[in-house]
Amino acid sequence: MITQSEISLSPLPRGYHLITSIISNHLEELPDKGLLNIHILHTSAGITINENADPDVRHDYELYFNRLAPENLEGIKHTIEGPDDMPAHIKASLVGSSVTIPITNGNLNLGIWQGIYLCEFRNHAGPRRLVLTIYS
Amino acid sequence: MITQSEISLSPLPRGYHLITSIISNHLEELPDKGLLNIHILHTSAGITINENADPDVRHDYELYFNRLAPENLEGIKHTIEGPDDMPAHIKASLVGSSVTIPITNGNLNLGIWQGIYLCEFRNHAGPRRLVLTIYS
Amino acid sequence: MITQSEISLSPLPRGYHLITSIISNHLEELPDKGLLNIHILHTSAGITINENADPDVRHDYELYFNRLAPENLEGIKHTIEGPDDMPAHIKASLVGSSVTIPITNGNLNLGIWQGIYLCEFRNHAGPRRLVLTIYS
Repeated sequence: MITQSEISLSPLPRGYHLITSIISNHLEELPDKGLLNIHILHTSAGITINENADPDVRHDYELYFNRLAPENLEGIKHTIEGPDDMPAHIKASLVGSSVTIPITNGNLNLGIWQGIYLCEFRNHAGPRRLVLTIYS
Repeated sequence: MITQSEISLSPLPRGYHLITSIISNHLEELPDKGLLNIHILHTSAGITINENADPDVRHDYELYFNRLAPENLEGIKHTIEGPDDMPAHIKASLVGSSVTIPITNGNLNLGIWQGIYLCEFRNHAGPRRLVLTIYS
Repeated sequence: MITQSEISLSPLPRGYHLITSIISNHLEELPDKGLLNIHILHTSAGITINENADPDVRHDYELYFNRLAPENLEGIKHTIEGPDDMPAHIKASLVGSSVTIPITNGNLNLGIWQGIYLCEFRNHAGPRRLVLTIYS
C-alpha cells in the first residue's frame, strides 16, 4: 500500500535544520512496518540524516560545506543567480535529494542520534516542498 | 506491485548527462502513485538529481568534481586502469549509485528544475546498465 | 509485501569493509523481484556501494576521505568526543546512511564489480546496527 502527501516548509535561513518532528507531526498514523521516502523538489537544498542532539554539529556542517564547495570558484559559469547558486547545486548532489527511512512498530526507525536534516544552501530561499511517500 | 526492467545506455563521454527523457520514454505507462528506483550497475559512474535547464551547470559539475577528486593523488594505489579510475570510484560514492523518485498522478514527481543525471566519470567508458524498479 | 529484520555487526576498525556476503547470508530466501533497503542506525558510519575486488580501493577511500574531511579543522566546535567525531558525521552525510538495491530473480542485482560497504569513520566504534527492509 502506498500513501503520499506533500508538505511545504516555510522559508528557512541558509544552514542545516532538524525537521524530524515536522515530518512526524505531518504524517498521520504510521503503518506497523514499511518505508518512508522523503524527496525534496528543489536543486539547491538537500535532505540528509545526521546527528540530532548538538547544535554545534549544524554549525560545523555549514562551516565545512562552505569550504568544500566555496563561492566564486575560478572557472564556474552558472553564476547568474548569484555566487551561492552553483555551490548550492553541488551540495545538493553531495548530500542528496531524498532519504528512505524504515518504519518499524509504527514509528520511524531512526537511530537514537539520527535526525532528518533540511539543508538550505541558498541565502534567500523560498518555501521548500517535500513529497512524502510511505509504502507498507 | 513491482515492475522491473533494465536499460542500457550507449557509451557517453566523461561528464554529466541529463537522462530524464530517456528514462521516461523507456518506462511504459506509470502507475498513478508509487516510487521509481534507478540503480546503476557500475562503480565508476553515478546517478543523481540536479538542475535540468542550464548546460553550464553540467560544465561546472565536471570542473568542480575534478578538483574535488583529482587524478594522481599522492598515496593512491588503485591505478592499474589509469588515473581516472580511482577518482571515478570516489565520485560514485559521493553522488550515489541510485535515486528513488516519487510517482504522482502517473508522472515522475520531480521539481520543475530537477532532472536525472547520468554521471560518467571514466574517460572511455562502455555502455552503462540501469535497473529500473517501480513499486506501486 | 514487506519483511524487515535487524542485524548487528561486531565492532570494525576504522575504514571501509565489504559486507555483501554478511548481508546475503543474513537474509533468508529473497523474493523473485523487489528492493532491499539497508539503513544504518548511526551517524558516524555510512553505507555505500563500490568496487568489490581490489582491497587497494578501500585503502584509497580511507586516504581520500581523511583528506576530504580532516580532523582538527579550524573553527569546528563539535569536538567533545574527539577529533574523529565531527569528520565522521560529515563523511556519513557524504556517502549516505542507506542504500536501496534491486532484487531480480531472487538475488541482489548488483553489478559484477559492486559490493556493499560499511564505512566505519570512528577510531573506536562499537557494534553497528543495520535495518534491512525488503519489499516485494
